[in-house]
Amino acid sequence: MREIHQEGSYHYVFSPYLEPIATIQPGETVAVHTEDAFEGRIQTPDDLPSKVLGSHLNPQTGPLYIEGAEPGDTLAVRIEEIQPTRNWAVSAFIPYFGGLTSTRATRTLNEALPERLWFYGLTGGVFSHEGKIRIPWCPFLGTIGTAPELEAVSALTPHNHGGNMDCKDTCPGNTVYLPVRVPGALFFTGDGHGNQGDGELCGVALEITTRSVLTFDLIKGRRIEWPRIESPDQLMTVGSARPMEDAARIAYTELVEWIAADYAFDRWEAYQLLTQAGTMYVGNMVDTYYSLVAGVDKSYLADGPPG
Amino acid sequence: MREIHQEGSYHYVFSPYLEPIATIQPGETVAVHTEDAFEGRIQTPDDLPSKVLGSHLNPQTGPLYIEGAEPGDTLAVRIEEIQPTRNWAVSAFIPYFGGLTSTRATRTLNEALPERLWFYGLTGGVFSHEGKIRIPWCPFLGTIGTAPELEAVSALTPHNHGGNMDCKDTCPGNTVYLPVRVPGALFFTGDGHGNQGDGELCGVALEITTRSVLTFDLIKGRRIEWPRIESPDQLMTVGSARPMEDAARIAYTELVEWIAADYAFDRWEAYQLLTQAGTMYVGNMVDTYYSLVAGVDKSYLADGPPG
Amino acid sequence: MREIHQEGSYHYVFSPYLEPIATIQPGETVAVHTEDAFEGRIQTPDDLPSKVLGSHLNPQTGPLYIEGAEPGDTLAVRIEEIQPTRNWAVSAFIPYFGGLTSTRATRTLNEALPERLWFYGLTGGVFSHEGKIRIPWCPFLGTIGTAPELEAVSALTPHNHGGNMDCKDTCPGNTVYLPVRVPGALFFTGDGHGNQGDGELCGVALEITTRSVLTFDLIKGRRIEWPRIESPDQLMTVGSARPMEDAARIAYTELVEWIAADYAFDRWEAYQLLTQAGTMYVGNMVDTYYSLVAGVDKSYLADGPPG
Amino acid sequence: MREIHQEGSYHYVFSPYLEPIATIQPGETVAVHTEDAFEGRIQTPDDLPSKVLGSHLNPQTGPLYIEGAEPGDTLAVRIEEIQPTRNWAVSAFIPYFGGLTSTRATRTLNEALPERLWFYGLTGGVFSHEGKIRIPWCPFLGTIGTAPELEAVSALTPHNHGGNMDCKDTCPGNTVYLPVRVPGALFFTGDGHGNQGDGELCGVALEITTRSVLTFDLIKGRRIEWPRIESPDQLMTVGSARPMEDAARIAYTELVEWIAADYAFDRWEAYQLLTQAGTMYVGNMVDTYYSLVAGVDKSYLADGPPG
Repeated sequence: MREIHQEGSYHYVFSPYLEPIATIQPGETVAVHTEDAFEGRIQTPDDLPSKVLGSHLNPQTGPLYIEGAEPGDTLAVRIEEIQPTRNWAVSAFIPYFGGLTSTRATRTLNEALPERLWFYGLTGGVFSHEGKIRIPWCPFLGTIGTAPELEAVSALTPHNHGGNMDCKDTCPGNTVYLPVRVPGALFFTGDGHGNQGDGELCGVALEITTRSVLTFDLIKGRRIEWPRIESPDQLMTVGSARPMEDAARIAYTELVEWIAADYAFDRWEAYQLLTQAGTMYVGNMVDTYYSLVAGVDKSYLADGPPG
Repeated sequence: MREIHQEGSYHYVFSPYLEPIATIQPGETVAVHTEDAFEGRIQTPDDLPSKVLGSHLNPQTGPLYIEGAEPGDTLAVRIEEIQPTRNWAVSAFIPYFGGLTSTRATRTLNEALPERLWFYGLTGGVFSHEGKIRIPWCPFLGTIGTAPELEAVSALTPHNHGGNMDCKDTCPGNTVYLPVRVPGALFFTGDGHGNQGDGELCGVALEITTRSVLTFDLIKGRRIEWPRIESPDQLMTVGSARPMEDAARIAYTELVEWIAADYAFDRWEAYQLLTQAGTMYVGNMVDTYYSLVAGVDKSYLADGPPG
Repeated sequence: MREIHQEGSYHYVFSPYLEPIATIQPGETVAVHTEDAFEGRIQTPDDLPSKVLGSHLNPQTGPLYIEGAEPGDTLAVRIEEIQPTRNWAVSAFIPYFGGLTSTRATRTLNEALPERLWFYGLTGGVFSHEGKIRIPWCPFLGTIGTAPELEAVSALTPHNHGGNMDCKDTCPGNTVYLPVRVPGALFFTGDGHGNQGDGELCGVALEITTRSVLTFDLIKGRRIEWPRIESPDQLMTVGSARPMEDAARIAYTELVEWIAADYAFDRWEAYQLLTQAGTMYVGNMVDTYYSLVAGVDKSYLADGPPG
Repeated sequence: MREIHQEGSYHYVFSPYLEPIATIQPGETVAVHTEDAFEGRIQTPDDLPSKVLGSHLNPQTGPLYIEGAEPGDTLAVRIEEIQPTRNWAVSAFIPYFGGLTSTRATRTLNEALPERLWFYGLTGGVFSHEGKIRIPWCPFLGTIGTAPELEAVSALTPHNHGGNMDCKDTCPGNTVYLPVRVPGALFFTGDGHGNQGDGELCGVALEITTRSVLTFDLIKGRRIEWPRIESPDQLMTVGSARPMEDAARIAYTELVEWIAADYAFDRWEAYQLLTQAGTMYVGNMVDTYYSLVAGVDKSYLADGPPG
């Protein structure tokens, strides 16, 4: 299996204007190494975000050029496994960033919350902060996506190309479907999380470095508007927007369209089914767009309710 | 056990100005009978909402006067069981109402979606619509709350008094904590749902009539700002607001305050813990305020992650 | 002319359940006396809001019963003049209230802004705070509306009954059109403002007591959904909602409908006209719902652009 | 005076990665020619948007490299005049785009509004559509800004770099202040509007081609976060965000900071002053972010209210 490390400098945008660092054949499985969201600049209690961080955040590994991918196709990325490449994680309270604070977008005259670092050791499958906060290892890729057609979008932003969705279901065992908008798709990923609650509340999960094993496939001639995720049990769609209800509308509408296209339900039946059986959780409530994840158990789409 | 039926007409507001229909002793268990959200006016395929419904919607059983309840107390309502009192449910597409449509609040010039009724039979613990949409019996009380201090709030509205939250966790086995804002608390409930997906997408769940067995307790001198729910495994808080991110902020802030008040975590530790271990789903995305439910597994609050 | 003072206690809700304090004949002009939004409890620099204010805020004079008013009519209230009944005004920074602060709705963990009172003397048509902030006398009624059909709505809330819109155009020379939802309309007003910037930014304008001369008329059989205002030059509609874009949508949609109903434009022409000639300002960005005011110069509706 | 025409193809992004088409000296006045937002593809009633438009929209003239501009400076662009370079304008109803329709962001299952073109002739300073809708010539540049530091942002997007703000005050006689984030600032402009109502309601103003005379100056070492506008009478700031209240918060906070930095008011006095004397209108309610414009009359900042 090829081990893919970022050659040269990391990228901070999902951009159609960058040179690929590798070419992948459809069907190929590779191991992608990712840096943490702070590019490793937070290592000790002295490395306060306001001191060590600038505008270059959330470094991405990529772009990977997928051979044969053309606009209008869908890229299927199966996440085979995610391994930690260090034995600790870090979270942080960053001034004017997070879900329960005034921010640069929801801007007010309030003082910032106190800046603070939270280090966790990882032992025996459990992250521990001073023995008090103990969180199981449950990793996923916080940022994963393809290049937009025209824009170079910040790696901090989730949108219809995927990107910084911060949803726990981009995890081992699941397949992420991404729109192809430029030749070669130009895939990027990074921002490994050792675990995360819904919403990524303070804005910073258990930030880790990873070796992530991914299998890439192409669905030719299949156009999707927004990222989709398939687990063994569920179909999911991710909508990213502000206000949050717009993210919810996008996610559920996309799921209605998916069901109506691929299953024996018309869109009104799908709308009704999701009313009674849909799931929706908050992926992130802290990024430039909020990400909400709509889902439905596949058993509803076959012959009745889950057994 | 007392069987409580609404005496006289139903109420369509959570109001401090109404006469109690019964007085409950703290510790008492009673069976409360509830009408469906349409007051039974939809019985046949001809009963289109635009024809049979007016402005009197979501009838409530109550108010129940809780002996000894005073402003500043908390009312604890344990939901012991919910039984259906008929063998069918109904859902509906109502013009300009629902999560994936232009509405009276998100008002546009678009034509309404087609009006439509969805009847379900209930047999063997499964709701079935024409054998195609099959949903398990999984009931909860869509509307549950106490009277506000000054306002008479529509039974269609969820807010800090509880009300029409449409969250699946107001279900058997869980305890709902509600603020007491007037003498006697003045408890109301209704809007039984046989099941519902997150968000109550089209705006109408599996609407049923119920016999709901409830146990009432008082926590004297305990003031809460927003409704809370406790399941055997989780602490939950419900925030209701627009835009949806404000509902999320309320729910998670209230949960931070709960943890900081009752467990060995200060509010910054609670904020960090919920970042890594919180849960948040969408209760409703269709009502006058959206309701989001924040939660945390109790095991995190004791000695480590869930076993 | 009759002088109407509140008999007995003020009201803090727009409610259909209250006894009228006076009956008005259509066509009648009366002088209505209003208390300030703090019910006069802030008189000296020691009267900090957190000390002297409780939950009974924004006292209203009313309800006035308009003879002959029935649901489905429109009440036209012409504001003839507003006189100050004291020679000073007060504004305040109230903890967790205002446009540039974390609030109880946009709830965060930030500390509150500093609490502060701002007194202004009124001399020669100018309010002056320590000679530094000088604001011309330009009064309007911050709160004005009719009773809802079923709810008793807080006097702090603006919605489709009018209420606490805090829009500068409910001022002398203009006519406010309000929906009649209960027999007699049940009109309330209060919350006089000596002047106010768009948005009522810190949440508290130049709060005054007033003697307001109002003429009441009925438009029988004319149903409106949201408050409308007519000035000598403009038609205006007020939408109140959250998020703010929903208030904007409501206001402009209502104005499209008004133009399409009363002028020689169909709704698509009205939509196009407002694209090129509409006005929209923020009335308040601090209340339980935000209020936005859409307008159009009447000259566009006749025979060409304003001369 | 130099006449600047786009050399080669137009750009559809505000990007730091593009080659300048001209270098400007601080203090220099030039005439910039701009294409219309549709790149001239709508000329006849047959040119329906769904037929002739693709993803390359809102073409910009630029980038212009401002000699000596460095990150941390402010670029001052005085708009001297805007002349039409054709005698007609066009507006359009585009499916799922606009302020009173379901959109791709506020996504629902509703049918789109009818697609329609609106042509206007320009004679004697008045635009006329079939003699019925008549709008005075009152031009401004809908899109104006500098390159972001890292991103290439769609020309359809307004944000802290300026861009597609669609605010009527980027007009002759006013000076637009823009942040410099890359060497040379990289200035772009386009999207001339012959006039526009607040909000640009249907999403398409009176789209024109222009010759715009602009004078460029640099304020060295002056860092601003968001675009500012100065008219002879007013200071203004533009916030662009979703939901709309976040745009309002940004605009007013930025104006508080401006006043506190440059005038004899501390930020609490500025907050109070704007409460009583600020103005705020909706620039656009249709773009990827909404733009709101906060303002204050300069006379308040000197010695009292406007005379």
